[in-house]
Amino acid sequence: MPDASLLETFPTPSTTPFVIEHIAEEFTSVCPKTGHPDFATIVMRYQPASKGPAAKRGCIELKSLKLYYQSFRNEGIYYEAVTNRIRDDLAKTCNPAWLQIITHWKGRGGISSVIRAEAGKVPAEWRTA
Amino acid sequence: MPDASLLETFPTPSTTPFVIEHIAEEFTSVCPKTGHPDFATIVMRYQPASKGPAAKRGCIELKSLKLYYQSFRNEGIYYEAVTNRIRDDLAKTCNPAWLQIITHWKGRGGISSVIRAEAGKVPAEWRTA
Amino acid sequence: MPDASLLETFPTPSTTPFVIEHIAEEFTSVCPKTGHPDFATIVMRYQPASKGPAAKRGCIELKSLKLYYQSFRNEGIYYEAVTNRIRDDLAKTCNPAWLQIITHWKGRGGISSVIRAEAGKVPAEWRTA
Amino acid sequence: MPDASLLETFPTPSTTPFVIEHIAEEFTSVCPKTGHPDFATIVMRYQPASKGPAAKRGCIELKSLKLYYQSFRNEGIYYEAVTNRIRDDLAKTCNPAWLQIITHWKGRGGISSVIRAEAGKVPAEWRTA
Amino acid sequence: MPDASLLETFPTPSTTPFVIEHIAEEFTSVCPKTGHPDFATIVMRYQPASKGPAAKRGCIELKSLKLYYQSFRNEGIYYEAVTNRIRDDLAKTCNPAWLQIITHWKGRGGISSVIRAEAGKVPAEWRTA
Amino acid sequence: MPDASLLETFPTPSTTPFVIEHIAEEFTSVCPKTGHPDFATIVMRYQPASKGPAAKRGCIELKSLKLYYQSFRNEGIYYEAVTNRIRDDLAKTCNPAWLQIITHWKGRGGISSVIRAEAGKVPAEWRTA
Amino acid sequence: MPDASLLETFPTPSTTPFVIEHIAEEFTSVCPKTGHPDFATIVMRYQPASKGPAAKRGCIELKSLKLYYQSFRNEGIYYEAVTNRIRDDLAKTCNPAWLQIITHWKGRGGISSVIRAEAGKVPAEWRTA
Amino acid sequence: MPDASLLETFPTPSTTPFVIEHIAEEFTSVCPKTGHPDFATIVMRYQPASKGPAAKRGCIELKSLKLYYQSFRNEGIYYEAVTNRIRDDLAKTCNPAWLQIITHWKGRGGISSVIRAEAGKVPAEWRTA
Amino acid sequence: MPDASLLETFPTPSTTPFVIEHIAEEFTSVCPKTGHPDFATIVMRYQPASKGPAAKRGCIELKSLKLYYQSFRNEGIYYEAVTNRIRDDLAKTCNPAWLQIITHWKGRGGISSVIRAEAGKVPAEWRTA
Amino acid sequence: MPDASLLETFPTPSTTPFVIEHIAEEFTSVCPKTGHPDFATIVMRYQPASKGPAAKRGCIELKSLKLYYQSFRNEGIYYEAVTNRIRDDLAKTCNPAWLQIITHWKGRGGISSVIRAEAGKVPAEWRTA
Repeated sequence: MPDASLLETFPTPSTTPFVIEHIAEEFTSVCPKTGHPDFATIVMRYQPASKGPAAKRGCIELKSLKLYYQSFRNEGIYYEAVTNRIRDDLAKTCNPAWLQIITHWKGRGGISSVIRAEAGKVPAEWRTA
Repeated sequence: MPDASLLETFPTPSTTPFVIEHIAEEFTSVCPKTGHPDFATIVMRYQPASKGPAAKRGCIELKSLKLYYQSFRNEGIYYEAVTNRIRDDLAKTCNPAWLQIITHWKGRGGISSVIRAEAGKVPAEWRTA
Repeated sequence: MPDASLLETFPTPSTTPFVIEHIAEEFTSVCPKTGHPDFATIVMRYQPASKGPAAKRGCIELKSLKLYYQSFRNEGIYYEAVTNRIRDDLAKTCNPAWLQIITHWKGRGGISSVIRAEAGKVPAEWRTA
Repeated sequence: MPDASLLETFPTPSTTPFVIEHIAEEFTSVCPKTGHPDFATIVMRYQPASKGPAAKRGCIELKSLKLYYQSFRNEGIYYEAVTNRIRDDLAKTCNPAWLQIITHWKGRGGISSVIRAEAGKVPAEWRTA
Repeated sequence: MPDASLLETFPTPSTTPFVIEHIAEEFTSVCPKTGHPDFATIVMRYQPASKGPAAKRGCIELKSLKLYYQSFRNEGIYYEAVTNRIRDDLAKTCNPAWLQIITHWKGRGGISSVIRAEAGKVPAEWRTA
Repeated sequence: MPDASLLETFPTPSTTPFVIEHIAEEFTSVCPKTGHPDFATIVMRYQPASKGPAAKRGCIELKSLKLYYQSFRNEGIYYEAVTNRIRDDLAKTCNPAWLQIITHWKGRGGISSVIRAEAGKVPAEWRTA
Repeated sequence: MPDASLLETFPTPSTTPFVIEHIAEEFTSVCPKTGHPDFATIVMRYQPASKGPAAKRGCIELKSLKLYYQSFRNEGIYYEAVTNRIRDDLAKTCNPAWLQIITHWKGRGGISSVIRAEAGKVPAEWRTA
Repeated sequence: MPDASLLETFPTPSTTPFVIEHIAEEFTSVCPKTGHPDFATIVMRYQPASKGPAAKRGCIELKSLKLYYQSFRNEGIYYEAVTNRIRDDLAKTCNPAWLQIITHWKGRGGISSVIRAEAGKVPAEWRTA
Repeated sequence: MPDASLLETFPTPSTTPFVIEHIAEEFTSVCPKTGHPDFATIVMRYQPASKGPAAKRGCIELKSLKLYYQSFRNEGIYYEAVTNRIRDDLAKTCNPAWLQIITHWKGRGGISSVIRAEAGKVPAEWRTA
Repeated sequence: MPDASLLETFPTPSTTPFVIEHIAEEFTSVCPKTGHPDFATIVMRYQPASKGPAAKRGCIELKSLKLYYQSFRNEGIYYEAVTNRIRDDLAKTCNPAWLQIITHWKGRGGISSVIRAEAGKVPAEWRTA
């Protein structure tokens, strides 16, 4: 089951604002209604905090992100809930200037889906990127 | 025939604004003039209502959307009318902060078409996306 | 329902063997089990008969092929049956030197399918083309 | 020769502003200098008028657009003139809130070209789309 | 765990040889060494038996194939073993004239893999297709 | 109207067999039934004669090929007839060891077409290339 | 050597502002340091002047543009200098409302390059197009 | 090890602002944690200084950029640190009006990454390009 | 330096012949002449031995293959020598029924290269795959 | 002018037959008729001689191949002649088991061309690759 305690951070290497994006192509969870697996690509994009105490200026450690995503493997959970949950867990963990979670779900019944959730003030130019 | 009563909603999992997009590649209806079938990919994109009573903050349920689209299968109806009708039916059903319907029609006589309709105040960055 | 009587032919313009291929991207029928629509691209490839009486050396007329494919629109029928039926109907109608029917079906439950049926002696180099 | 009288309109199905785009991949005219044929894809994009008398709130009828484009087939006319002429003819015919004509010409001497003309106040986000 | 008893067949609709291909893009199992998930696209291609008793001339039923593939979800098993096991299970279930299993595995450490196993006499033209 | 006398040849620069291919993306003719224009890409592939008197060992001159293709611009003629006619005209003009004409026609009513005609003994490996 | 006198103009066909783009895929010059040839695709995009005396409202004639580009063929000149020189020569020749030159250079030592220069006030939406 | 002293500049050929982009597809460094190599494509985009003393208005010399990138080959360094370091070294070397460094890293454990760092005031339209 | 002792094998899971392909996109070595790095994608394709003593019927272990490829990282060695050396090392290590090594090298001076080496009797249909 | 004396060879690193392919995307020569430049991608594919005296078992050195191709830059010569000349020059220089030259020419008047010439006995599977 989803486990935010798997997430680790490390201090940002710079106080100049910059943007980090991780694209995970191998996300899978389970539809709570049918019990069938769902598959998604998850884009996480954020600007690490550049102000405030060092302890709050962290980057997400890549391997811990992978393990966190794997913790959804056998969880029954809807698209919208996955997206909002990841946004909440990551925002709490690294306290970013802003954060976007974009989940691209493989087609079901001829319909594929994309869900986008945000934390903080995402600049307009990033919103549809 | 098109039947908006097939559409179902469920409460949004978050009060933070987020954006949902469903891409249906298998829409078909019938040309009212020639009786020949038309084929389209339909993109529905919206921000669920984040304010107001919970009953009005719904997301469109995916399977009900599929059945609603299927109800156009043998309907004689023009491209422009399909697009505006879906916009109206969905806006009424889920009362979103904003909504876009983009229909991409396969070529007829060497001309393919895209129709875009909106409800509410669509942010500029989404308009041509 | 599928209606082979819609198919028309016209005499081949040459007695030298040649190969004709028609790719129809807008085929739809209905799954007999679930009642949901299926969508396919259908490739028909054949060499018109180059010997024998003129009446048997026909090419399939393009518009009649379109109407024949449209006659499957509301028929409940499996992928494999569609493919074999089209093969049989077309082979009977135009009596070709050889004929291939290749149906490419959009994904269901994450699985897409391709079915290939043949009539007559298809040259090896065409079999997987 | 180009004949704007071929164009027909029909009333818009909605008073809510929406955007229509027709992509014609089979346009051909003739170079007035060399007599050789030119080939283009023509994108027409417009927002039908949403205010004013119904007679002026028309959409371009698709088949009439095809015939209008075909009327350039043997006309000797430059890229820039084609683009501006189509813009003028269509703007006069359907009186849109705004209109874009984008012509993509196949290469000549290793140089391909794109010409864009507009009528009315095209929103900035559409200009380069 | 992998369960071949989930597989079902139905009689072939034709005694003329034909070829069926199912492409499953959502296969996942687990690496027995690291415990991390593996992801693959699995192509199954076969010619149903055209001779012999009807009971042995079956096609694989599509939904049962999906459930069979899902039974590997939490199994620790190597690429090569997955491929050979599926080949064996399917060949036993439907007794085909010939059968190919092609598994495409997403990259690990910068290396992606493709494994191909066969049953019966696969025609040369299919071998690398 | 189609005019084979426009075609010119020049002597092959080598007596070693070699293969020439010209891909013309801008062919257009007219449907004799509807009067609407048809558009095709035409591939011509041949091996110039390597034996016999020099006068019969010609290559097709490129500009003359362009003019010959342009002579079909306003001709009412079917796909199959175009393909066989070009095959005949070119084979007569340059007397090649072998020749292929492959015409790819843009979609009509959702169906696109490819016609292939040959002269002489085309090697098997070229037939489906 | 580069010769701006090769450039010719013709009067714009319209006083309504419009945008012209010419994409030349076959530009080549020589590296002044190594003597090896460089290859680029050059995009020229501009809005012809819509005000002022007719003599200053010209469009660049396409064939003259080709000859002008060819005049760089054996010139030893750096990427940045090519781009700025073309911008200067064209701006002087046709006096446009605005002009962009974008040069895309094939890779050298695993690094490819794109240089963008402008004249006049290029609208923001065009800058990165 | 990374060596900024390898970088060389040359004077800008123009005082009009313009934008230079170098795309290096062959960057490799080493993961400091696992010792395994990392691979990236690095985009460097900047506007050379157009004001101030000539000595500060330099462009980065292409071959020196290649050698600088090669100096990371056996360095153990994280994605984020690489990106910020290159940004700092280049900004110091050529003192640009603005500068972007975008590093695209090949997938690790199914996750690929993109890091973007900036110096100076990058125009909004370039930020997500 | 290249170290074949890094390679490990495991017993084949089946005595039925099957084909394994590993595509490594992150190979790098050094040009012995210029000292600059070279980058390649390496395809290794083989049929494990199906006869003979079990000890000789091995598959290449994937992680050991990765480490073996990494051992070329700082080796000065030509394309052709890399390809033949890998072929020799792998053939000796796993004694396959047949083996192909295909190396795709990124462009140098506008020329990219592909080298193919083989061990054993590679079936004709695989040679150009 | 074309200068075969620029070509250099080095001894093959193996006596086992293998295949080398060099793809040059930046070839340019001049049309002898119009004086305009022509642009091509040239594929050279060959099997170095594996028998005979060492002096005749050479591989083409890559940089010398680049210089040889550059020597055509200002030569007026037809497509067919370029292809046959390169075939002859290379075959003489390295005496291969077999050799293919495939030249892909950018479009002229809407027609692009591919010429293929061979020396020695090219295996059938390579002929159309």
